[in-house]
Amino acid sequence: MTVFRVWAPRPGLVNLLLGDRTLPMSRSANGWWTGREDGAGAGTDYAFSLDGGPPRADPRSGYQPFGPEGPSRLVDHASFAWSDERWRGLPLPGAVLYECHIGTFSAAGTFAGAIEHLGHLVDLGVDAVELLPVAEFPGDRGWGYDPVSLYAPHHAYGEPDDLKRLVDAAHGHGLAVILDVVYNHLGPAGNYLPEFGPYFTTRYQTAWGEAINFDGPDSDQVRRFVIDNALMWLRDYHVDGLRIDAVHAISDASATHVLAELAEEVRALAAHLRRTLIVIAESDLNDPRLVTSPAAGGYGLDAAWADDWHHAVHAALTGERTGYYADFGSLTALAKATRQAWVYDGVYSAFRRRVHGRSPVGLAGSQFVISTQNHDQVGNRAAAERTSALMTGRRLRVAAALLLTSPFVPMIFQGEEWGATCPFPYFTDHADPDLADAVRQGRRAEFGEFGEFGENPQDIPDPQDRATFERAKLDWTQTEKDDHAELLTWYRHLIKLRAQHRELTDPRLSAMAVDFDESAGWLTIRRGTVLVAVNLGQSDWAHEVGDGARLLAGSDSLVRFTDDATLLLPPDSAAILLVRAS
Amino acid sequence: MTVFRVWAPRPGLVNLLLGDRTLPMSRSANGWWTGREDGAGAGTDYAFSLDGGPPRADPRSGYQPFGPEGPSRLVDHASFAWSDERWRGLPLPGAVLYECHIGTFSAAGTFAGAIEHLGHLVDLGVDAVELLPVAEFPGDRGWGYDPVSLYAPHHAYGEPDDLKRLVDAAHGHGLAVILDVVYNHLGPAGNYLPEFGPYFTTRYQTAWGEAINFDGPDSDQVRRFVIDNALMWLRDYHVDGLRIDAVHAISDASATHVLAELAEEVRALAAHLRRTLIVIAESDLNDPRLVTSPAAGGYGLDAAWADDWHHAVHAALTGERTGYYADFGSLTALAKATRQAWVYDGVYSAFRRRVHGRSPVGLAGSQFVISTQNHDQVGNRAAAERTSALMTGRRLRVAAALLLTSPFVPMIFQGEEWGATCPFPYFTDHADPDLADAVRQGRRAEFGEFGEFGENPQDIPDPQDRATFERAKLDWTQTEKDDHAELLTWYRHLIKLRAQHRELTDPRLSAMAVDFDESAGWLTIRRGTVLVAVNLGQSDWAHEVGDGARLLAGSDSLVRFTDDATLLLPPDSAAILLVRAS
Repeated sequence: MTVFRVWAPRPGLVNLLLGDRTLPMSRSANGWWTGREDGAGAGTDYAFSLDGGPPRADPRSGYQPFGPEGPSRLVDHASFAWSDERWRGLPLPGAVLYECHIGTFSAAGTFAGAIEHLGHLVDLGVDAVELLPVAEFPGDRGWGYDPVSLYAPHHAYGEPDDLKRLVDAAHGHGLAVILDVVYNHLGPAGNYLPEFGPYFTTRYQTAWGEAINFDGPDSDQVRRFVIDNALMWLRDYHVDGLRIDAVHAISDASATHVLAELAEEVRALAAHLRRTLIVIAESDLNDPRLVTSPAAGGYGLDAAWADDWHHAVHAALTGERTGYYADFGSLTALAKATRQAWVYDGVYSAFRRRVHGRSPVGLAGSQFVISTQNHDQVGNRAAAERTSALMTGRRLRVAAALLLTSPFVPMIFQGEEWGATCPFPYFTDHADPDLADAVRQGRRAEFGEFGEFGENPQDIPDPQDRATFERAKLDWTQTEKDDHAELLTWYRHLIKLRAQHRELTDPRLSAMAVDFDESAGWLTIRRGTVLVAVNLGQSDWAHEVGDGARLLAGSDSLVRFTDDATLLLPPDSAAILLVRAS
Repeated sequence: MTVFRVWAPRPGLVNLLLGDRTLPMSRSANGWWTGREDGAGAGTDYAFSLDGGPPRADPRSGYQPFGPEGPSRLVDHASFAWSDERWRGLPLPGAVLYECHIGTFSAAGTFAGAIEHLGHLVDLGVDAVELLPVAEFPGDRGWGYDPVSLYAPHHAYGEPDDLKRLVDAAHGHGLAVILDVVYNHLGPAGNYLPEFGPYFTTRYQTAWGEAINFDGPDSDQVRRFVIDNALMWLRDYHVDGLRIDAVHAISDASATHVLAELAEEVRALAAHLRRTLIVIAESDLNDPRLVTSPAAGGYGLDAAWADDWHHAVHAALTGERTGYYADFGSLTALAKATRQAWVYDGVYSAFRRRVHGRSPVGLAGSQFVISTQNHDQVGNRAAAERTSALMTGRRLRVAAALLLTSPFVPMIFQGEEWGATCPFPYFTDHADPDLADAVRQGRRAEFGEFGEFGENPQDIPDPQDRATFERAKLDWTQTEKDDHAELLTWYRHLIKLRAQHRELTDPRLSAMAVDFDESAGWLTIRRGTVLVAVNLGQSDWAHEVGDGARLLAGSDSLVRFTDDATLLLPPDSAAILLVRAS
């Protein structure tokens, strides 16, 4: 016998729809409705009817084979044959992450397709794959940041068991899986949650849709909806961690913030499963509270994205100064980002027109996730160029050296390691032409802040065009070609060095000394006996490194010793050395 | 020469209006405008004109002699002859507060009028007077919670020097002065701040008006506007502390919350002045973060109001169960409030329809301000009755015993100590008939939650009627009459006991044992060798207190020992005893 349960405090009547049959459900306390059916089981399709209305998907549906508007399909999480009994998860400190979008990572664009490239990730040396959101969204293609059925893997990526196979295979390769989840809003199309209950509130505004009701009347079950979702991925799909999207858009005035409660429940689950589970926040708040321990008044998340680091590197290496890059660009900013990830730590931001952030002093380097590019920083550009189109090959290698020698948690964006040339434009597949048009116009309006693109909005790829999506797919044949293969070798070498030299993963920010010369254009990072030297100036730089120094890696064959103690770095080069203890 | 300065990033032109003269001001960085004039000085009236528009008061005006719509008058804070050089402020732990509304506290309804009653407060034994907001609001009478000119004492209460005289006189009497300040919104009438700059935001909603922009673009100067205001009262008016109104309506997603920043600046000022300065929040969040130290991730305020304590006592003693009192009423709730102030510490609230609050474990009793009534709890009732109209004289004495023996910071509402019979209805004096009518309708609508009143909205006093205000004025002749005089003696006796027995002000919540019998209706509070016993049941209660117990106070002449070790408490009575150490 299968018990169907749904939280629906709003309607006065809820019926279970099974094939042609309409079965009454009974209301219990707190707005939960229950229905029982002997014939149903894994694979059965069903829906709910509220107050006699049309069929609606289960808000907690485990699978939507025909999209958010279709029926829900029962999933049995107990039946999968896992082979990862000995997998105990991945500790975040020391790890290198790899961000991956299922729809474009492989030619097939599916969970199964991704499995074929796990070997590449093992060869590269990364520790975890971080999947862009896989929860059900409308249409067959999209980034995933407008999810509708939070509990259902997206139908175009495969069935629930296909996602489990991917996670199981990753674990078999020694790779962890981190999943991007969106808990700040739901997508606009196919979202009937308001008919069920007060999932949303107008007390707060988000840029993308109605804010979720985390602190108003009847919010307890809304919080459970989100927290249970987090626990489901970790427990039923064996996922090793979550990356929570844009937590600055999660407003909650409760005495216990929903993120703190979520983190606490994840820790309890981790203890029960005896596995390491990770919770990472994407946040633009530069607020230490997110990753501070509960005992010290924090939310107790493991780490937060630090976009400042990206912006500092990007502006310094590309010379771009439009939009939010106006706040960055100097070696001073790059040095500050190198030291503590956050450039804005309580100082005035011209772009934000206010003081921003707070000092991260006391935090560990492993509490910040950094990248030289990611889906947002690529895709939110009008033409969605990767850094491979924005800087020289020499500078790509310098960027990689900064990324992979940092005390933070480096994340590589799929294809970055070989300088993939495909763009990663924003793409959607909305059935509603009005919505599709609104998205199109919205994308064009958004690029006002990047002046040079705003002038030709018609050049911005049409998100609805299938070709826009197709162009984003990785071309794996590039990995073996010339410059691409060379860059890939450089990434592999850097990741190997990171694994070999404990100084490079030392999370203590205080154990690092950064020096630079703004006008000459050089920057050095000393970490124990490891020295990273970068020359972004226009002339050769002869750097005195002391007798006995040994070159571990040079981004360039012209990086060389001119005598026993002097290293020469040509413009746009980086070197990693072992030097004598000072 | 006087330098006029105003922050006005919005207009392209700002002129200084002095008498008939229009003087240009010059714009400097960050939207500040400056004008200089030789002839101006203390007492000079002035205004600003933005983009050639009509005269507008200075947002930081020190005095608005003709109301918010009139000109601003220059105030010289350096010239007042203070006589409180040796006053060092009041530590909050151990203190008893007295809440007072200038307009109704004395017959004159002025700062000067209040001075005449300071002697009464000294005789009563309280330590500080807490003034309802005195910042300029429209009209001649009002509660003060819709302020417009935050830096100007209300014109109908006197001149700025009159407020200084009141503070100076209070200090001369050994009384501290705490000032209620409103930083969550500004009043609707006469508020032209949006013409000057982005003081407000639509990102958040408040129940009373536009939310203040504490975290959006250009918010740095808005934060300064509020923090400088707090510092002004403490520095220029020698006020000893602030009570910040409804901080749950202050939304700020910045890494450093504006309240944390305010508290930090107040601590710095206190060190500079070598005086104790206090910051208290009114909050309905039941969130320890407000009063937790910054080192432990908190905002570092000194204390927060605990309405749960009020509700628990009020519901238990009046039997009321409407509105938010539905969440209270049992001795179980009263005992929990007695132990830790917050009844809702992470448990489900039926009234709020969600889990509410967080455990206060680890906080000190002196971090909670409690009362058996206050301006809100009286005035927000439809008929604005005090407890003197809602419970018997016997129960008033029990309530006082619970209040003044608690480990929290007790606050008495003006006249409560003698059971004053005047109501404290909401009153306003809006010139705009539409606004006046909106307020009137709003008050009537609000009482829907208190069912029995909602049915006859016409019975609700008209806030605009001058008689409504006049009825709120204290009748001091009552203090010498019969029951009133007796209740006053009881309050004085309790406050004296509180001063004499250190157990009663011990802020350690863990040093207290509370016991009760829900069906019999008794409750005991053991604090060291002091025992408080309360009988709210319908029968006499014979309580075994052990040999050698001594009665310090009985709320009733029938409270007596029946043998050496047994105290008899009749229904609705309280006793305070010294007992042997157990």
